[in-house]
Amino acid sequence: MERIDGRNNDQKRPAKITRNFTKYAEGSVLVETGETKVICTASIDEKVPPFLKGAGEGWITSEYGMLPRSTQVRRIRESSRGKVDGRTMEIQRLIGRALRSVVDLKSLGEMTIWIDCDVIQADGGTRTASITGAFVALVDAINKASETKQFAKYPITDFVAAISVGIVNGEQLLDLKYEEDSNAQVDMNIVMTDAGEFVEIQGTGEQKPFSKGDMDILLGLGEKGARELIELQKEVLGEDAARIGK
Amino acid sequence: MERIDGRNNDQKRPAKITRNFTKYAEGSVLVETGETKVICTASIDEKVPPFLKGAGEGWITSEYGMLPRSTQVRRIRESSRGKVDGRTMEIQRLIGRALRSVVDLKSLGEMTIWIDCDVIQADGGTRTASITGAFVALVDAINKASETKQFAKYPITDFVAAISVGIVNGEQLLDLKYEEDSNAQVDMNIVMTDAGEFVEIQGTGEQKPFSKGDMDILLGLGEKGARELIELQKEVLGEDAARIGK
Amino acid sequence: MERIDGRNNDQKRPAKITRNFTKYAEGSVLVETGETKVICTASIDEKVPPFLKGAGEGWITSEYGMLPRSTQVRRIRESSRGKVDGRTMEIQRLIGRALRSVVDLKSLGEMTIWIDCDVIQADGGTRTASITGAFVALVDAINKASETKQFAKYPITDFVAAISVGIVNGEQLLDLKYEEDSNAQVDMNIVMTDAGEFVEIQGTGEQKPFSKGDMDILLGLGEKGARELIELQKEVLGEDAARIGK
Amino acid sequence: MERIDGRNNDQKRPAKITRNFTKYAEGSVLVETGETKVICTASIDEKVPPFLKGAGEGWITSEYGMLPRSTQVRRIRESSRGKVDGRTMEIQRLIGRALRSVVDLKSLGEMTIWIDCDVIQADGGTRTASITGAFVALVDAINKASETKQFAKYPITDFVAAISVGIVNGEQLLDLKYEEDSNAQVDMNIVMTDAGEFVEIQGTGEQKPFSKGDMDILLGLGEKGARELIELQKEVLGEDAARIGK
Amino acid sequence: MERIDGRNNDQKRPAKITRNFTKYAEGSVLVETGETKVICTASIDEKVPPFLKGAGEGWITSEYGMLPRSTQVRRIRESSRGKVDGRTMEIQRLIGRALRSVVDLKSLGEMTIWIDCDVIQADGGTRTASITGAFVALVDAINKASETKQFAKYPITDFVAAISVGIVNGEQLLDLKYEEDSNAQVDMNIVMTDAGEFVEIQGTGEQKPFSKGDMDILLGLGEKGARELIELQKEVLGEDAARIGK
Amino acid sequence: MERIDGRNNDQKRPAKITRNFTKYAEGSVLVETGETKVICTASIDEKVPPFLKGAGEGWITSEYGMLPRSTQVRRIRESSRGKVDGRTMEIQRLIGRALRSVVDLKSLGEMTIWIDCDVIQADGGTRTASITGAFVALVDAINKASETKQFAKYPITDFVAAISVGIVNGEQLLDLKYEEDSNAQVDMNIVMTDAGEFVEIQGTGEQKPFSKGDMDILLGLGEKGARELIELQKEVLGEDAARIGK
Repeated sequence: MERIDGRNNDQKRPAKITRNFTKYAEGSVLVETGETKVICTASIDEKVPPFLKGAGEGWITSEYGMLPRSTQVRRIRESSRGKVDGRTMEIQRLIGRALRSVVDLKSLGEMTIWIDCDVIQADGGTRTASITGAFVALVDAINKASETKQFAKYPITDFVAAISVGIVNGEQLLDLKYEEDSNAQVDMNIVMTDAGEFVEIQGTGEQKPFSKGDMDILLGLGEKGARELIELQKEVLGEDAARIGK
Repeated sequence: MERIDGRNNDQKRPAKITRNFTKYAEGSVLVETGETKVICTASIDEKVPPFLKGAGEGWITSEYGMLPRSTQVRRIRESSRGKVDGRTMEIQRLIGRALRSVVDLKSLGEMTIWIDCDVIQADGGTRTASITGAFVALVDAINKASETKQFAKYPITDFVAAISVGIVNGEQLLDLKYEEDSNAQVDMNIVMTDAGEFVEIQGTGEQKPFSKGDMDILLGLGEKGARELIELQKEVLGEDAARIGK
Repeated sequence: MERIDGRNNDQKRPAKITRNFTKYAEGSVLVETGETKVICTASIDEKVPPFLKGAGEGWITSEYGMLPRSTQVRRIRESSRGKVDGRTMEIQRLIGRALRSVVDLKSLGEMTIWIDCDVIQADGGTRTASITGAFVALVDAINKASETKQFAKYPITDFVAAISVGIVNGEQLLDLKYEEDSNAQVDMNIVMTDAGEFVEIQGTGEQKPFSKGDMDILLGLGEKGARELIELQKEVLGEDAARIGK
Repeated sequence: MERIDGRNNDQKRPAKITRNFTKYAEGSVLVETGETKVICTASIDEKVPPFLKGAGEGWITSEYGMLPRSTQVRRIRESSRGKVDGRTMEIQRLIGRALRSVVDLKSLGEMTIWIDCDVIQADGGTRTASITGAFVALVDAINKASETKQFAKYPITDFVAAISVGIVNGEQLLDLKYEEDSNAQVDMNIVMTDAGEFVEIQGTGEQKPFSKGDMDILLGLGEKGARELIELQKEVLGEDAARIGK
Repeated sequence: MERIDGRNNDQKRPAKITRNFTKYAEGSVLVETGETKVICTASIDEKVPPFLKGAGEGWITSEYGMLPRSTQVRRIRESSRGKVDGRTMEIQRLIGRALRSVVDLKSLGEMTIWIDCDVIQADGGTRTASITGAFVALVDAINKASETKQFAKYPITDFVAAISVGIVNGEQLLDLKYEEDSNAQVDMNIVMTDAGEFVEIQGTGEQKPFSKGDMDILLGLGEKGARELIELQKEVLGEDAARIGK
Repeated sequence: MERIDGRNNDQKRPAKITRNFTKYAEGSVLVETGETKVICTASIDEKVPPFLKGAGEGWITSEYGMLPRSTQVRRIRESSRGKVDGRTMEIQRLIGRALRSVVDLKSLGEMTIWIDCDVIQADGGTRTASITGAFVALVDAINKASETKQFAKYPITDFVAAISVGIVNGEQLLDLKYEEDSNAQVDMNIVMTDAGEFVEIQGTGEQKPFSKGDMDILLGLGEKGARELIELQKEVLGEDAARIGK
């Protein structure tokens, strides 16, 4: 069976990361994976959240939003409804954990980095694109902070990228597009480091449970996709990536 | 006294309107005035609000938002705070009134058009840029709707654009940039039609009241700026503008 | 065409301001313009809002409400709905700006004055009546504060009053009553000082745009009405007005 | 020990009920008990709440509010805080129950009567004054409704009024003023009918428990006060009271 | 007429109090009265609310909740609706007052005790069962606090328990079960101390007003029931009750 | 290294499931895994959510809560804060997906089953215990529904249970207790069916990424634990389990 856009099962969509997309944030990136487009910014805040007061450590937190017409049918604005829905909360918690996993918060010292991921256009994989793009914005923000602040040790310890995999019509696919995602029997998001280790695996077989064998194939696909995205991050960051993990 | 970006007092910033900026909305525009950038979409909804049930008329409503890092200092997301602030409400009411003023809601018939203006980057004049851009998105959405729906009469009756004027350091200026706006003694937003009439004038002299003479000069500047923006709208819409006001 | 209550086009409704209407507030006024009745109180609070901490300046802020049955049809209480609507926010921001425009916040020193305008009965022009009445409450509150606090300079710099004007059935009218207001093609609120300058002009031609000529006539009507209201303020304040603008 | 305003222990404050206080509501009353002043309106709504759909019965519901500066220290508006506090809810539930106790909801038929009690000035006893005043507004609203609607049976079955009693410095007092109320060891609200029966008794001895003997004295005082208030209601209603309980 | 569960009119349901029901709270009790089951915990918090800062006094506050399926029909979770309803607020205020009435807050010193009453299964009388059970949890928490903190004087001054009474089908009954409660003409909650005095009496005759004679009978029944519940508290607390009122 | 409670690394805590724990819900279970205790109820609601209107299918939805003192430090009630936090939303979405994965919603027909999981005492693994317990409540509710409703086909297709695994101090452990969970480098929740397939895998290495090898060991441990829990479910359900998967 051919995929809707003609890709091979193990082929991800073309991805593009544009740095310095807007002018105020310390890090600002437009990430595109196929038709999915997300603006990711990283903002430095000198304060830390209450639970870290005086601990000498930093924090990275994330918020995620979708423009009302980033989707096929207009979504009601969460600000109008007066609350953030469960899916949004789940995603922003995921993005925060993913980025914290590659930052040494002690070396970062007392500051909070706010990661904002705002989806301009959604075509599947917005949460994984957010992680992949936000990592680049984070590097830019930390490098900018390093101009005025002396880190004991450079705080970014590894690259991190994310991609979705899933089983659609019985076939294991890499990087699901919206139509694939909404028909998937199994849907899995994989967050990986350049060291080839997993930061997060979230697999759901709501429509159909999956076997250990399926899982192994999906993890293999995810690893391939994540490695390609990390290559893109390295290319885009160029020599600004030099200190990562050193 | 020279303006911060070297413009003449009666010179607006370069403006640019990009149509079809995102793919799902019936109308989708990126409007840029100088460094201010706003995504404006127009979405067709077959329903009407409760107060128009059965009236055979349509409605146009607007929502406005700012990405958290569209500004120099990160703003807390309104969805996180659980409520929309007064400034946002004021702006979305203004945009809605401005666009309704050039649409014959009876000819539009039973539908709601949702206008969403989301500021990607703010450098003064986001509400006026929103109106100017949203008008183009609105034309695109109504033209799209006309493919499947027969309007008794084409519902758009005129062009509408908006621009800010103000008094800074005692001088009357057109199209205030952020630094000018935040130091303005008088701040005025002008919404005009192609027929040269006013749809809305909102002038505030919180720091210093203003005379009838000041007002006349400001209205003159505003008219000049609004005319130039309407020219841009015409150019960008090309032949898609042909039915407006007919 | 005769007006609904037989007034001339340039005639405002009878207005009345009752001082010391309730007993706890530092300033408490009942303002009546025709059948519109608003209780305006000014309350002294020793604290300042966070953005003024340590600045040595004061602040004036306003809240506006309507009793549920101040209107022809009962309005749901904003406290029951859990949020303040856009119109309310717009009005309270307007009242705050209008009063701050005639107070030297540096001379006021560190304090906040809370202006509360609560509509008991609404018959058009509640926001302008609120400004006119609240000014008197503000004077009373500041004079009361001056009994215990030494102002470097008396902080009230001028009188301020407000009135509505509009175009109804093609005629320019002063001080619109509810039935006129709800049929107005153009609706404008004018806030003026005793020096004859404008603090705020908000004109909306949602039903029909308006020309510069219309605008000039409306401003003239507004100036006449505002002057008459300021005369009333002076009369009501008597010698308590003596220090204003000195 | 003399009471703060020189009254005898069994003497209530002077009370006054002004009908037709505002012009839109079907019933509108200003009730004053000493310095406590409450606007009570009764509004007819043709709809019934969901739990009564199709039951052929009516409903009476109540809301209560305080103007921010009805009190010695300004209270934050509940609409600004986004929620109604516990005390307010308790009071509006009490008012609703009190009025429903003297209305035959079946005879009322399908309609909702909204009772709004808004405190203009608070000096103790606002909830009991609300009940006493709201009863008169309710009678006016039902009589007004009876002009266009034929009730099978006149729905008001009895008079109802309320008053507070309490123990202050060991003495049993009728109709507590604010200073008495805030120092009361025991605080009790009594709602009675003209038939001399109790609709509601709420007694609290948070500072000091009370005996059966205290209770009996307090009920006696309350009965005296309630009877006097019902006399006032009868006098104020005049012949409009004729059908009550018939 | 026989009661639904065969009890005499003056007979309460079997009651049971299980201490140390959960392991973290300083006091944790399961209270059962018939089929009504409530978990009551008392938690020590070293802080005091803002209005007591520096006063050297303590505070006791209460919250009440019902599990969604503690009732015959599932209730929507208050957290999902985003607000606490009026009945809940009324109950938690009542529980707080009841417990504070038997604690000398000055002797308690600076601490807050949080009382949480969560209904697992509701069969009438949940608020009174909460008070009866919470008292035991409170004693346990204060005794636990006394292990590390030296109270000038033991702060619990008396026992307190609560029970409902009412008139159903014209008969005065003790301790209403759900079916009785929902058909009661008069419903009364009585909170009493071991000294035989009332802390709170809340009687409502929404369906039918009640006479002084009814009231006296109901108070008598309530006193009987409360005494029995206090006996149960004493038995359950054993020697841990020794210091109460000393 | 010995575990805190002396268990082997691959040993789960003793588990217990008590059916018919409360009396109103169609299914009501107390599940205990070690010191973690959760009340799980399943409630039948004849309505379906709006997105399923007329589709002839059923739905299963879940809500999760913690009693304020189910934890070592008292948590603020979500109803008091007015919103449900991200962790709660994440958990209730997880529970819903897990149970829907073993129910044929078409066979269920038009009804909603509300699953409520309320934690009485938390000692790690509350979300997995909720799934394990809620499954039994769900079976009871569906069996109860089958007494009055004829299912085309018995809608439960398999057993489902859940357990946590993780890496603590470098060792892979089954069924983490609170102290283990809060120190885990890797934390994974596994939801499995009796057929030995995965419904959900959520693994997080926020403190330390994990390898494919770690993952395989953790999945093995999880499978062991889940199988044991499904055995317990079978034992507890006895012959009521007979129709599952048939």
